[in-house]
Amino acid sequence: MKIARLLRQNMETYAFVNGEKVLTRESMTSQTGIPIPQSIKDFLFDGWYDEIKSNVKNMSYNENLSDFKFLPPIPNPSKIICLAFNYKDHAKEQNLIPPDEPAIVIKPRTTLNGATSDIVCPSFVSKLDYEIELAVIIGKDCKNISEKEAKDAVFGYMILNDASARDIQAKDKQFTRAKGFDTFAPCGPWITSADEIPEPQNLKMTTKVNGDVRQNSSTSNMHLKVYSIVSLLSKAMTLEKGDIISTGTPAGVMLNKPDAIFLKDGDKIEMEIENLGKIQNTVRFV
Amino acid sequence: MKIARLLRQNMETYAFVNGEKVLTRESMTSQTGIPIPQSIKDFLFDGWYDEIKSNVKNMSYNENLSDFKFLPPIPNPSKIICLAFNYKDHAKEQNLIPPDEPAIVIKPRTTLNGATSDIVCPSFVSKLDYEIELAVIIGKDCKNISEKEAKDAVFGYMILNDASARDIQAKDKQFTRAKGFDTFAPCGPWITSADEIPEPQNLKMTTKVNGDVRQNSSTSNMHLKVYSIVSLLSKAMTLEKGDIISTGTPAGVMLNKPDAIFLKDGDKIEMEIENLGKIQNTVRFV
Repeated sequence: MKIARLLRQNMETYAFVNGEKVLTRESMTSQTGIPIPQSIKDFLFDGWYDEIKSNVKNMSYNENLSDFKFLPPIPNPSKIICLAFNYKDHAKEQNLIPPDEPAIVIKPRTTLNGATSDIVCPSFVSKLDYEIELAVIIGKDCKNISEKEAKDAVFGYMILNDASARDIQAKDKQFTRAKGFDTFAPCGPWITSADEIPEPQNLKMTTKVNGDVRQNSSTSNMHLKVYSIVSLLSKAMTLEKGDIISTGTPAGVMLNKPDAIFLKDGDKIEMEIENLGKIQNTVRFV
Repeated sequence: MKIARLLRQNMETYAFVNGEKVLTRESMTSQTGIPIPQSIKDFLFDGWYDEIKSNVKNMSYNENLSDFKFLPPIPNPSKIICLAFNYKDHAKEQNLIPPDEPAIVIKPRTTLNGATSDIVCPSFVSKLDYEIELAVIIGKDCKNISEKEAKDAVFGYMILNDASARDIQAKDKQFTRAKGFDTFAPCGPWITSADEIPEPQNLKMTTKVNGDVRQNSSTSNMHLKVYSIVSLLSKAMTLEKGDIISTGTPAGVMLNKPDAIFLKDGDKIEMEIENLGKIQNTVRFV
């Protein structure tokens, strides 16, 4: 299933997506007579989704996706964890060996941004860069779990652009502020449930800037794989339902390139991951 | 005012603290007839605190602090930001120059721990270290504010121990996982409102381990000062009410010391900051 968080005329909702058609929460409520909860997190992680998903095929997807604007699928995650240097091809272009345990940064929730919204960057940032990433949505609270258990803890996947101010990153050494600006985590367009992605380690991924292909790789180039990452992180910290774990970026970013072309006002970034859809964001310097 | 979040017989509450006596939410409600909200964040940041604080002196502090256990004062902050290398004396012992812009790490909310609770550390961590820090509680949502405006955005202060696994920190380079373990942010014992701390840059601070003084410094040794930190961070990200900003640690930690004595099972850490009280946590390796 594909579940999007959406906005229409300043009203938030969420919906199952099927091609160009959607089945909203309000429509589910009216078609079933059951008062579906207002919060997408309650819906997805507190039993409602499991209860209703088998009935959805009998319901009518009676509204148009094009009438809505995308919101970031999870509104208020407890954590947004991003891995550094986790792709073999990216580590190679940076002359690094990918680490065997997850080197992480946490982005604040104020970075979250919709799949077609603008990335708004203060003009004091001089080296704005993109990073396409496969993001995992955690479906249950868990601590100290095995890789096998980790598979059950993954609710689904989406695309996340781990936008990064490379000048700040170089200045601070710690990457948190550089990756922590408001709007620096465009994501979505929707959550694709894990049952639709049985093999998360073989998904093509592409980033285009103004139509030019910049990143063209596959999740097969990940060093630490999804279930291993979830298991290893859970050895340190409790993962909570709705947490987002973004699993690193492949080669093709501008970081440390002598001929780097950093993002500028008006640039259009398009990111696509196989079976997960596409996000398209325009850069605005303010 | 001093406001603590407390637990008694599995019931959470919050209370004004005066010496050994407390005035709980429930007692405020019964003494005023006003239904004080259950959430400490609603109470502190949505007008209730400002409304009620002048009447508190006429109310009876009719319960004993010793009947309660301390909880971390803010239960679910949007961010817990920790500064790296922000004290002149600590930077000097690390052979570093303190950075002129805040180099930060974000701790997940799952690190939060009470003022007298155990720090529970997995046994695969070999170099557990302490860091006494002055933590700022943000009182209003703000973005891109000046230092003068930052002063108005600070609700209050507390002590925070930015516990850190130095072996993980060395391995990852990024400090987030090393500082992100569950229970690695003991804090409190309560929030002291900003009006009681007119000069936050002149507070004595002491860490003792099993009674031995390990850190003995003052917030006067901070490089970036409180209002400057808040202003600079707000240039990158929206700060939200309830956010915690921990402003770095002074000299005396074990990081990179050739004769380092890292924390071991049963060690008792006592941290005190002038006018903010004391937190006392025991280390448990599991």
